[in-house]
Amino acid sequence: MMKLRDLGERKAVELIWDLLGDREIDAAVKDDCAALDFGDEYLLVTTDMISEHAHIPEKTKPWQIGWHIVAINLSDIAAMGGEPFGMVVALGLPENYEVNSLEEMVEGMKSCASNFNTTILGGDTKETKTLTLSGCAIGRVAKTEIMLRKGAKSGEVVAVTGELGRAASAYYALKNNPEDENAIKNLLEVSPRGKEGIALSKTGVVTACMDISDGLASSLHQLGLLNDITFQLDFSQIPISNEAKAMSKKMNIPIEELAIYFGGDYELLVTLDKEGLDRAQKALSEIGTKLSPIGRVLKDKENILIKDDVSTFLENRGFEHFRRRP
Amino acid sequence: MMKLRDLGERKAVELIWDLLGDREIDAAVKDDCAALDFGDEYLLVTTDMISEHAHIPEKTKPWQIGWHIVAINLSDIAAMGGEPFGMVVALGLPENYEVNSLEEMVEGMKSCASNFNTTILGGDTKETKTLTLSGCAIGRVAKTEIMLRKGAKSGEVVAVTGELGRAASAYYALKNNPEDENAIKNLLEVSPRGKEGIALSKTGVVTACMDISDGLASSLHQLGLLNDITFQLDFSQIPISNEAKAMSKKMNIPIEELAIYFGGDYELLVTLDKEGLDRAQKALSEIGTKLSPIGRVLKDKENILIKDDVSTFLENRGFEHFRRRP
Repeated sequence: MMKLRDLGERKAVELIWDLLGDREIDAAVKDDCAALDFGDEYLLVTTDMISEHAHIPEKTKPWQIGWHIVAINLSDIAAMGGEPFGMVVALGLPENYEVNSLEEMVEGMKSCASNFNTTILGGDTKETKTLTLSGCAIGRVAKTEIMLRKGAKSGEVVAVTGELGRAASAYYALKNNPEDENAIKNLLEVSPRGKEGIALSKTGVVTACMDISDGLASSLHQLGLLNDITFQLDFSQIPISNEAKAMSKKMNIPIEELAIYFGGDYELLVTLDKEGLDRAQKALSEIGTKLSPIGRVLKDKENILIKDDVSTFLENRGFEHFRRRP
Repeated sequence: MMKLRDLGERKAVELIWDLLGDREIDAAVKDDCAALDFGDEYLLVTTDMISEHAHIPEKTKPWQIGWHIVAINLSDIAAMGGEPFGMVVALGLPENYEVNSLEEMVEGMKSCASNFNTTILGGDTKETKTLTLSGCAIGRVAKTEIMLRKGAKSGEVVAVTGELGRAASAYYALKNNPEDENAIKNLLEVSPRGKEGIALSKTGVVTACMDISDGLASSLHQLGLLNDITFQLDFSQIPISNEAKAMSKKMNIPIEELAIYFGGDYELLVTLDKEGLDRAQKALSEIGTKLSPIGRVLKDKENILIKDDVSTFLENRGFEHFRRRP
């Protein structure tokens, strides 16, 4: 019998979509977030789950877990240019979980929600063997302003917000020292790009958008497949965090592994034409966020990474559940 | 340090609500389902989680698990008189879970959704140690037609749809024989009262409504506390399923334990005045569902159960997570 570990998360998701078949969803099929027709607007609905062992380092504070479950759900609303409308969180907790920890966790949820201009509407509390939290965020966006994964065209530019590799370097830092507080902070206390998503959608120049929580390479492959395009990345243009640069040296890990082939950075990846890039950069600089062009959209055979004047194939890998990372 | 098992689910939920504080939610605070202002309508959002060990008998078929997670979420929309708009499901699955089982699970989700006139919009697939599913259902209801938990008044009648004790008898049947297929079916393949909720809300006579998934006694206590009222139940009027009657005899369990002090029956509990009762019964009989008056709403000191002309206190217990059932 075939097990999920043989299939991997991406193929499992494909399988589920195929089984669910054609549905009356107006937009956003195969996006991480569903968009429902609601008059002049789309109503956005997304869900994301985290679980002990798989996502949460042992020394993580409950406050950080609460923050994280809210942040990663808001990221999917942000990637569509949506304004969050509220969210619900189901808490699966072990019976011996401390009440104090639950209180801290709820404070973390609340802080993240209010920090990103939304509210915890309610939730569910259930007993589970291992700590498992599942969030569902609701958002809204004008039909004329929604950003979808579908829409990228060859000839355009691909760009990314912020800096990459912070989560990856935190992951390796924790391998060395499971109590590294700064690493846990970088991995868990992520900031969804809510303001950035709204600002980008209002420029009207973005042709496709998604977050890169699965990793840059993996996200580009997903975008390529959906839009029947390819990407040519210029490594020298990729904005890499100082943490990732330092970790690459310290642990002798190729920098691409941290910046391209890992996940956990909740930045936005967009495609747009060259004229649009200026406008989008200007809109984001007004809110203090960098938007870096990192390559071109082509209609080639493979995704390509150019580094030190040498082209190699951009591999299709990143963080994937059910598959083991060495 | 105080643990969740010392506190119990209900108190944990109270604690969370207190911590979340006052929020701009227009209605339905402390309902299982949040209601958000959306023009002439309320947008309804609810979440419910199930997990291996706590909710799923070992011999449950994946199809039934898929059905169940959708059904229990739709029940909270039904209790508000809402029309479901769609739902998302986060699947937390172990790495050695069989791909065939995942396929069956998705088919079960799909069947339940289409059976109750809605759609699985999307979801999330994550690796967890133990099988944990979390759903989030979205619904809509006209502002003039929403049914809330708050609104019951003394002098009214309390009534319940369908029959009680089916889930409880299934629970005890499985204690005897963990492979009892009929019991698993009764526990998992529940039918949310979607049509009934909409029909009841359209009558305009219901003053308060909730589902009784926590058990009848527990639900009445919750409703009493919220509305500052009490209930006087007439045991002879409570509609009890044949399964519960048979199980009570067979295992020598008091019938109240099965019909009143257990949970898992996804029936609707409503309060309304006597004239309203006729209208509500008529509306439900048109869709083939019984609505039984089971007692009176009072403003007394305690909730009372009258059985064989003897009154006793209606205890405040039912199914509660984190607390152990003997």
